[in-house]
Amino acid sequence: MMLPDPSVKYRPFVAVDLPDRQWPNQRLTQPPIWCSVDMRDGNQALIDPMDLERKRRFFEMLVKIGFKEIEVGFPSASQIDFDYVRELIDNDLVPDGVSIQVLTQARPHLIERTFEALKGAKKAIVHVYNATDPVFRRVVFNVDKPQCIKIATDATALIKQRMAECPETDWTFQYSPELFTSTELEFAVEIVDAVAATYGPTSDKPMIVNLPATVEIATPNHYADQIEWFCRHVAKRDSLIVSVHPHNDRGTGVAAAELAVMAGADRVEGTLFGNGERTGNVDIVTLAMNLYTQGVHPQLDFSNITPIMREVEHCNQLPVHPRHPYVGDLVFTAFSGSHQDAIKKGMAERRQHPDAMWEVPYLPIDPLDVGRSYEAVIRVNSQSGKGGVAYLLEEEHGIELPRRLSIEFSQVVQEVAERTGKEITSQMIYQAFADEYLDNTSPYALVNHRLSSEPDSPRVHLEAVIEERGSRETIHGTANGPLAAFIKALGAHGVSIEIIDYHEHSRGQGAEAEAIAYVEVRIDDKAVFGVGIDESITSASMKAVMGALNRHLATHKEAAPNVTAETLK
Amino acid sequence: MMLPDPSVKYRPFVAVDLPDRQWPNQRLTQPPIWCSVDMRDGNQALIDPMDLERKRRFFEMLVKIGFKEIEVGFPSASQIDFDYVRELIDNDLVPDGVSIQVLTQARPHLIERTFEALKGAKKAIVHVYNATDPVFRRVVFNVDKPQCIKIATDATALIKQRMAECPETDWTFQYSPELFTSTELEFAVEIVDAVAATYGPTSDKPMIVNLPATVEIATPNHYADQIEWFCRHVAKRDSLIVSVHPHNDRGTGVAAAELAVMAGADRVEGTLFGNGERTGNVDIVTLAMNLYTQGVHPQLDFSNITPIMREVEHCNQLPVHPRHPYVGDLVFTAFSGSHQDAIKKGMAERRQHPDAMWEVPYLPIDPLDVGRSYEAVIRVNSQSGKGGVAYLLEEEHGIELPRRLSIEFSQVVQEVAERTGKEITSQMIYQAFADEYLDNTSPYALVNHRLSSEPDSPRVHLEAVIEERGSRETIHGTANGPLAAFIKALGAHGVSIEIIDYHEHSRGQGAEAEAIAYVEVRIDDKAVFGVGIDESITSASMKAVMGALNRHLATHKEAAPNVTAETLK
Repeated sequence: MMLPDPSVKYRPFVAVDLPDRQWPNQRLTQPPIWCSVDMRDGNQALIDPMDLERKRRFFEMLVKIGFKEIEVGFPSASQIDFDYVRELIDNDLVPDGVSIQVLTQARPHLIERTFEALKGAKKAIVHVYNATDPVFRRVVFNVDKPQCIKIATDATALIKQRMAECPETDWTFQYSPELFTSTELEFAVEIVDAVAATYGPTSDKPMIVNLPATVEIATPNHYADQIEWFCRHVAKRDSLIVSVHPHNDRGTGVAAAELAVMAGADRVEGTLFGNGERTGNVDIVTLAMNLYTQGVHPQLDFSNITPIMREVEHCNQLPVHPRHPYVGDLVFTAFSGSHQDAIKKGMAERRQHPDAMWEVPYLPIDPLDVGRSYEAVIRVNSQSGKGGVAYLLEEEHGIELPRRLSIEFSQVVQEVAERTGKEITSQMIYQAFADEYLDNTSPYALVNHRLSSEPDSPRVHLEAVIEERGSRETIHGTANGPLAAFIKALGAHGVSIEIIDYHEHSRGQGAEAEAIAYVEVRIDDKAVFGVGIDESITSASMKAVMGALNRHLATHKEAAPNVTAETLK
Repeated sequence: MMLPDPSVKYRPFVAVDLPDRQWPNQRLTQPPIWCSVDMRDGNQALIDPMDLERKRRFFEMLVKIGFKEIEVGFPSASQIDFDYVRELIDNDLVPDGVSIQVLTQARPHLIERTFEALKGAKKAIVHVYNATDPVFRRVVFNVDKPQCIKIATDATALIKQRMAECPETDWTFQYSPELFTSTELEFAVEIVDAVAATYGPTSDKPMIVNLPATVEIATPNHYADQIEWFCRHVAKRDSLIVSVHPHNDRGTGVAAAELAVMAGADRVEGTLFGNGERTGNVDIVTLAMNLYTQGVHPQLDFSNITPIMREVEHCNQLPVHPRHPYVGDLVFTAFSGSHQDAIKKGMAERRQHPDAMWEVPYLPIDPLDVGRSYEAVIRVNSQSGKGGVAYLLEEEHGIELPRRLSIEFSQVVQEVAERTGKEITSQMIYQAFADEYLDNTSPYALVNHRLSSEPDSPRVHLEAVIEERGSRETIHGTANGPLAAFIKALGAHGVSIEIIDYHEHSRGQGAEAEAIAYVEVRIDDKAVFGVGIDESITSASMKAVMGALNRHLATHKEAAPNVTAETLK
């Protein structure tokens, strides 16, 4: 054990005293107000921050998705951000109903610069923060609590004044006690109450109080406890929009956001696919689609999610992981045989009841809803059983294997997979199927056949020409149907075959249609499958029988008693 | 809004009736039993499953990390898995105290094959599962509840019998009701009770009951409610090791595992960095390090995490995301200026109190604890303020910028960053610093100087040779110290300079040591900084003044009143 004893170095979080917490009884029934901070918190955490062209593309995409609040930058800290905010305003690029939000520290010259950047905006959120966390107060800023409050209220007063001077803009004020999660809760309430008293929000014109988990410090239930405690104790709750801003240091940012909304938060700040400082901000795509799979419309449009992922990857120059919920390249893919089998059955049931509630095993969402396809659902490798193979043959090649044949064939595919050690593609599966079952016209092949029936009788008479080791023979049989007649004819010819199972279906449509027949037959006490394809359903079934016979002969060359050398001549 | 109305397609989860739930009052004070399922659930979800060589490497790594329970495969479903289990046993590759675990469906021929694979094992867990979820019962297997229970108890009886026949192995039995999370809770308890009654576990020799969230279907508090309800209602709780197996479809797998352990689970199945079907299994690295940062030793060793990440990436042929908690390439990096500044101050405080509890802002863990370095903490780009620049200059170049100079210089760096639009490296920062402050020997340069002091007097007399636009001049001054004397001498020469601020420190040690001096001076009512480096502390300070003068002249060529053309001659 090389990791040192952590108990002397790391302090556990301080639990909130909230034994009568209500949030575990709540559930999410409507979306929060979404605010994208991709272009600020996300952008500032990029190795190469976005240039103007990438910023323009990102903003347009966010608007198209449906975001009404977009934090576009920190104009007092970055010239690029300042220029971009001016471009948005001067070129009237912000649609009606969309607020641009900018961040500023609670310092007079930065606030002044912020209002320079926002001059003429139609609708804007001024987001001011100061550090309230005790470590920051002591180590970083060396201020006591009253000084800390004064920084916040002075900034609030200045912002209120500057807003009043520019009444042409529809202003919203937002305050964040920075590192809310590691600030004493009582002090967080105290400073927010002081800020609200200075600003004077009303229920008609509320202010936003953003409570950031700038660094995730505890299990996500703790954040929910903090939010519920805060909401119960803060003054003027009805004049506040309580906002959360989770990060993901412990990998529980999504959970923290969900539990915090259950605990009373009205609004969530996050980014697409969770870009942001260190481990990232909370991922709004996952939050939105989590709501969607619970029957709640998120009011954001991720119905075509792949192009959004590619655009974000381009703008951020960071990958979205192949296992990222709802969008990763692998998330609509099942490799395991039992998973594939269950999905296949669920999909089949759904085809019969397309308006039923979604309950396809292993797929928490219909891939179609986010613009992904069923074709990508199944891949096959050496871990797979029969389900995936059967599914791919059916979906991509119109071949609906009978159950036992699919079990037999999955072993063929598994051998291929284990031999190559690689993923098996749909094309490789089809080729293995064709090699094994369709390419079996030797030593026996059907050349043609003719059927005639007797009037007022169910019996049919068959005359078939077969090729047998290169020479042609005509065989005859009479039975209740053509396949039985063919078996009879073969029997009369000295080839004893018994049909165990028979399936046939059409493949393709119209002039292109053909029939595919699958037979399981018993030859010399051995069960063997055969498959035949032909435009004629009778020819297809007879070819299937011939295929089974040929496969049997190939496997049991040394001993094929009822198919003796004599009869084969 | 292109996403269709989800309320007609997706059902919200069914809440557990548990108003007196206790788990929100619990906290994590000890690690659960860890079981790695990388080589089974993880492996089966890979595009290219591990070959034998990669399996061997992975197993060795898991043992080295400290896992005592390792699910190594599904030998009845895969020949490769079967061969690998045989190799482990036949070559005695499993260390004492480590259990190998294998998965099997509850079907007699697969169970028989499983025991073939395990024959001769020293310590093994036989993990059997069947589907208990109602959709699976109806759609996939077409069984009713009694049939479903019989499948489980028949399998249990067979396993118990086979175990009894091989007493040389130290057996543990594990049962999973598959898709526990979407199984009716009462039925999950019923089938587990039936299985336990068949197997007969005791508190001395318990069995494992694994409750998989095979697909994540709800907010993570729901999983905790399910686990607490189950633990309260199941018979023989003291003879059961309750295990959880979360997946990550909603991005809350880590949270679900943590809350489930708070709710009573004893054991967690997961994978390194969260590989697994679709969105992955729960990530054990994150869970373990989350405990660690709360002062609880996880009993797994991730003290050198980067090689583990690289090895997992090699074996899985999948990347670990750059923002993955505790290990991603970007998680110990702060780009934001205010973050960098706070980290710098926190690090400085820590150097003074190295045994104090960890409380460096924005870093939830000491990077050293996982084998990462402080050097990687800070990068600089156009979003950054002064902190990161100052930090890098100090850590990598021994240059400790005074506060105001660091503010001025951060603007220099920001200009470089915005001009290039790229990440600024430490080397680029040093170069920008040298270009701006050290490469300033024109038009003025210090050639040499000589100091003499009067006996019993604090006053020193300076005689300095300076180079001025190519020609040398000797200047003289007397004051209380050498720098003041140099200013006097310059004044007598017609160059009026006032010192506002002065800092100097050594750089390097021993024979290599040199001094670096920073001055902020006022020239013509303008404040300007200069920096000088020399082996002599007096020469360094004079060079700094010359540097400031040269910078002023370069910036204000058109108007330098007190440095007239006449005096400069």
